[in-house]
Amino acid sequence: MNVGILGGGQLGQMLALSAYPLGISTSCLVETLDTPASRVAPVTQCSLDDQSTLREWVKSVDVVTYEFENFPAEFVAALSELRTVHPHVKAIAVAQDRWREKQLFVDLDIPIPAYRPVTDPAQVPTAVEQLACDVVAKTRSGGYDGKGQAVVGEGEPLDPIVALLESGDIIVEQRIDFDVEGSIIAVRSTKGDVRCYPIIVNEHRRNILHKSIPCTQDHDDPHARIAPVAGIDFDDISRQAEVAVRAIMNELDYVGTLALEFFVKDQRLFANEIAPRVHNSGHWTIEGAHTSQFENHMRAVCGLPLGATEAIGYSTMVNIIGETPRIDDLLRIDGASVHLYGKSPRPARKLGHVTVTANHVRDRDEITEAVEQLLERTNTYQ
Amino acid sequence: MNVGILGGGQLGQMLALSAYPLGISTSCLVETLDTPASRVAPVTQCSLDDQSTLREWVKSVDVVTYEFENFPAEFVAALSELRTVHPHVKAIAVAQDRWREKQLFVDLDIPIPAYRPVTDPAQVPTAVEQLACDVVAKTRSGGYDGKGQAVVGEGEPLDPIVALLESGDIIVEQRIDFDVEGSIIAVRSTKGDVRCYPIIVNEHRRNILHKSIPCTQDHDDPHARIAPVAGIDFDDISRQAEVAVRAIMNELDYVGTLALEFFVKDQRLFANEIAPRVHNSGHWTIEGAHTSQFENHMRAVCGLPLGATEAIGYSTMVNIIGETPRIDDLLRIDGASVHLYGKSPRPARKLGHVTVTANHVRDRDEITEAVEQLLERTNTYQ
Repeated sequence: MNVGILGGGQLGQMLALSAYPLGISTSCLVETLDTPASRVAPVTQCSLDDQSTLREWVKSVDVVTYEFENFPAEFVAALSELRTVHPHVKAIAVAQDRWREKQLFVDLDIPIPAYRPVTDPAQVPTAVEQLACDVVAKTRSGGYDGKGQAVVGEGEPLDPIVALLESGDIIVEQRIDFDVEGSIIAVRSTKGDVRCYPIIVNEHRRNILHKSIPCTQDHDDPHARIAPVAGIDFDDISRQAEVAVRAIMNELDYVGTLALEFFVKDQRLFANEIAPRVHNSGHWTIEGAHTSQFENHMRAVCGLPLGATEAIGYSTMVNIIGETPRIDDLLRIDGASVHLYGKSPRPARKLGHVTVTANHVRDRDEITEAVEQLLERTNTYQ
Repeated sequence: MNVGILGGGQLGQMLALSAYPLGISTSCLVETLDTPASRVAPVTQCSLDDQSTLREWVKSVDVVTYEFENFPAEFVAALSELRTVHPHVKAIAVAQDRWREKQLFVDLDIPIPAYRPVTDPAQVPTAVEQLACDVVAKTRSGGYDGKGQAVVGEGEPLDPIVALLESGDIIVEQRIDFDVEGSIIAVRSTKGDVRCYPIIVNEHRRNILHKSIPCTQDHDDPHARIAPVAGIDFDDISRQAEVAVRAIMNELDYVGTLALEFFVKDQRLFANEIAPRVHNSGHWTIEGAHTSQFENHMRAVCGLPLGATEAIGYSTMVNIIGETPRIDDLLRIDGASVHLYGKSPRPARKLGHVTVTANHVRDRDEITEAVEQLLERTNTYQ
């Protein structure tokens, strides 16, 4: 089986590496050759309007998937006519358009922050007035890691929102003063089986994911959960997240791994956005779960049975941002697994990550502390 | 860093895959292109007497290692003049020659079965008489998975031993009626640091490794060990094995991963042989240890700090021999991690392996049982 992957970033790198042991080969379609995946898998360089190279590549693979959701939906739809594309292009169309995404959540009765779509500066005051709270404005399409966003406190001037409108339609939504941010990663097979990983608590710094901590069961006590934050009933949040992610995947006829990001406030989950792909907050699953999110994605798109999503030991994941410490210093931390993406340093750029997995929560936390201390000296978030 | 690997079998495949996340690239030198590693890493096809291709390849890498110990020692010695080769060619020379290997064990006071080197049919009766027990004869060089061996019970005709002499010198040794067979895998850095993995109990079928079970600590009780076999003090055996493997590695100025295979009889360890490379009985370390034997080998030969060798959860490894079950059937076993080498089926051929890792010994054993039941229907050991 040869899986074509649209994109060749670190997610493509990790998808390709997860496929080899199953005897699955991969072939990444990239616009520029110097990408992380090109170090680990065959890549085909192709501009998206080069129909002949594109057709040749598509014919050389058995199924197409993607590691990046911002390819034009029409482009992916055209590929779908030549080869099966998993996940379905519907997922891309939704993920690229915050209006459609919000509507999907609403249609599925998934709680979200109050919001107003806005197309014109004249609509801004009414929208903000109706929301009657601190708001965050976001471009309808594009935007990641906090780019394409503007936060405006209640009663503050609306200029940043109006400025955002210059690049197109926006959404203005209630800013949730959340207790924690989280995500759930799930995978759905061609037969419609769904498996969820333990929900994850995410810590962002300057809008970039800094650390992810899965809320795994206590392996010594099946009725308890290792909660990264006190005062929150994570069993209850897990149930809310699983109901939401299953509804989304079923609605989209989804095949593959998907992430749903959410806020938790007063024991309620508010869906934020979906990523129709493997997700940074799930990188710990390489070492820390029976089957990684990458392998499960490949299993799903190849029509194979899904693997177990339970955690092994206790894990955390910390991103390497902007600059990489000396490799010796990283490797000297016992119990830390280092993943580098081969990218050149640049402020706010994800260059790699470190997973900590241990048999005891105490050990995990101590090792994570050592990793964070080391990374604090090099990580640059902007 | 670019590491040149002599050989391109499944060990090369797994070495290459372990290197990518550390930003280390690999390049395998292979005699035939259709090898497992060629699916995952760049390979250079070269016959061993093609000096010009060889020189070009050596110049393209920063350090050379090997995944197979039966390259001619003179060939590896010649490469060592052009580039650093880890482990040192001394290790190859010893591993290829059972006489030297036995002498090394003797020199280091490592207990071994009684033995006699034999060069001539006329010496056979005396050698067997002096040993005065069931014996096993082995060719001095070559031989693996029981090939190049002859077992003769006490008082039985000596013809099989004489027949073995036709292909060259042999060794005749006491056949240990062992309680268990085991191995210890250790890694030594360029600075002389040594780390040992938990010792492993190995079950062979028709002389081919069938299953490996590491004797890890009980994670809930640091004073207890999960013993695969009752009635043996594995703490004590571990101490004997660690002393032996450290002595061997230090003596050989060893850099990289090494396996020492041994027998256990009446609570005594008898060294059998070394493999100067990553080893089949250590494949469980990919999922089941902080750092896999493959990654630690790459760290060592690159002069990087070694990673922790402790187990995460509880693991076993079962080989896929001769024929591969339907992939769907394998993947349907929750908690089994499948590794295929892309080799065509052939009786007694190692085609892949399955690692089981779980948080509880009970779960590990149940899943292993399911894997073995499935493989029993396809595995062919001769």
